[in-house]
Amino acid sequence: MQLLDGKVLSEQILTEIAGEVEAIKKAGGKIPHLAAVLVGNDGASQTYVNSKVKNCERVGFKSTLIQRESSTTEAELLAIVRQLNNDADIDGFIVQLPLPSHISEKLITDSISPDKDVDGFHPFNVGKLALGLETFVSATPNGVMEMLKRYKIETAGKNCVVIGRSNIVGSPMAMLLSKPNKCEVIANNGYTADATVTICHSRTQNLKEITSKADILVVAIGKAEFVTADMVKDGAVVVDVGIHRIPDETKKSGFRLVGDVKFDEVAPKTSYITPVPGGVGLMTICSLLQNTLKAGKK
Amino acid sequence: MQLLDGKVLSEQILTEIAGEVEAIKKAGGKIPHLAAVLVGNDGASQTYVNSKVKNCERVGFKSTLIQRESSTTEAELLAIVRQLNNDADIDGFIVQLPLPSHISEKLITDSISPDKDVDGFHPFNVGKLALGLETFVSATPNGVMEMLKRYKIETAGKNCVVIGRSNIVGSPMAMLLSKPNKCEVIANNGYTADATVTICHSRTQNLKEITSKADILVVAIGKAEFVTADMVKDGAVVVDVGIHRIPDETKKSGFRLVGDVKFDEVAPKTSYITPVPGGVGLMTICSLLQNTLKAGKK
Repeated sequence: MQLLDGKVLSEQILTEIAGEVEAIKKAGGKIPHLAAVLVGNDGASQTYVNSKVKNCERVGFKSTLIQRESSTTEAELLAIVRQLNNDADIDGFIVQLPLPSHISEKLITDSISPDKDVDGFHPFNVGKLALGLETFVSATPNGVMEMLKRYKIETAGKNCVVIGRSNIVGSPMAMLLSKPNKCEVIANNGYTADATVTICHSRTQNLKEITSKADILVVAIGKAEFVTADMVKDGAVVVDVGIHRIPDETKKSGFRLVGDVKFDEVAPKTSYITPVPGGVGLMTICSLLQNTLKAGKK
Repeated sequence: MQLLDGKVLSEQILTEIAGEVEAIKKAGGKIPHLAAVLVGNDGASQTYVNSKVKNCERVGFKSTLIQRESSTTEAELLAIVRQLNNDADIDGFIVQLPLPSHISEKLITDSISPDKDVDGFHPFNVGKLALGLETFVSATPNGVMEMLKRYKIETAGKNCVVIGRSNIVGSPMAMLLSKPNKCEVIANNGYTADATVTICHSRTQNLKEITSKADILVVAIGKAEFVTADMVKDGAVVVDVGIHRIPDETKKSGFRLVGDVKFDEVAPKTSYITPVPGGVGLMTICSLLQNTLKAGKK
């Protein structure tokens, strides 16, 4: 069993991006500039956005944080989006979700210019992905593909099973893995795909039968330690997208972090597995920065 | 074994659409208007477009056929698209593919206004489908979903296997079947989905093992009589999207039409199967008219 180590990979990718920014600077080019919009006081959102801004600094990007009260109206937020769409210095921006319930997330997402939609949530960009065209792939599936690529895990013709069908993880993950290797979104990024893909979810009746045939199992079901050893084939590659806080009195913090996979019993059966924390989570911020770099180059 | 009868269903749907057009007329509303653009002299394309126009007349739609020489430039075709985008009387239009090789199909498809893209090929509409939102679903997957709905074939929790991953059939088919029943594109149309879906293709290594577990098998691989009886589970539902001409001296025409499924040997094992011809093919024109009706109502 070998770890798919998000710490090592994300360091590697951040260093690569920083190198590219240096080269752009030397050549007198435009420094990539990411803006993040945060509405309200959600603690987790604040943490995520801060981490995004911090990592921008780390790689040498410019970053702008636009913070607004939770009482901000939809019209006010739309005006901010429009301003960012029209600001030539901003290469890409994100509006951190979730938004307060009086604001339509769909309306806001749809109003972001697809050229600056580095989260890859706009229907136009999702459609390009579905068509196999190069686009801004959303952070988590992009991060998983990077992991597979950098650990040289062969996917062509393999049985891949994705548990979960969400719009931001399971569904795009299944699309990417099933595309032909020669299509734009795969070939241009040097990814590996061409897998036989099964999409499972809460309504799947014979889950264990399906997962235990998977050469590569991607788990994004959002249930703590859901996947147990009996569900996994010997020698499988297991990618765990989940992250959950579990009360644990032995820890100073009072909790420990676990994924969607029961790591201790599953890991010994696998050829490769992502740890939680230290796995896929760390890759997502890299994906956002990779997308911003790509937007800046356009 | 029961036939999923495209003749009966398409007649039923065309009659329903004609009824809706009558009601619109009586209420003094605007008659739906479809335009079709045909470039060049491809015989098959000519036949398809003629059939589309004829069926518009049949249901009471207005239709406009715009025919141009194969020497038409990309700029000239773009100008036609722009004019149709801006023509308030046109509710929806299609540009018949394939186009002559000197014209970029991607460029033309992307330039059609998503509101009038009744073929459902524009990335924005494909993205909405991938996100589970109501949109113009492309003709063949939409037609298959109509068949499943109208024959009351339960898909929730079933093992669906789609052979083929093309952008216009296999890929959107897999998306639709795997979506939650409560999502917009499924719920608003009264479709059934929520299936466990496996996408197979030319690189799939253990195809027979996978297909022989399918409760519902959708075949869109483009190879004549590819699926044989040993690949199909007893009692499965088999949907055959393929259509091929096979030389046959016993026929006056010199050929017979077959699908991607070896019908004679597969049919006895199934609970439901589509014939070729007389199956999915007839549903596609209905999908186009349904989309045009929807566009007209907006």
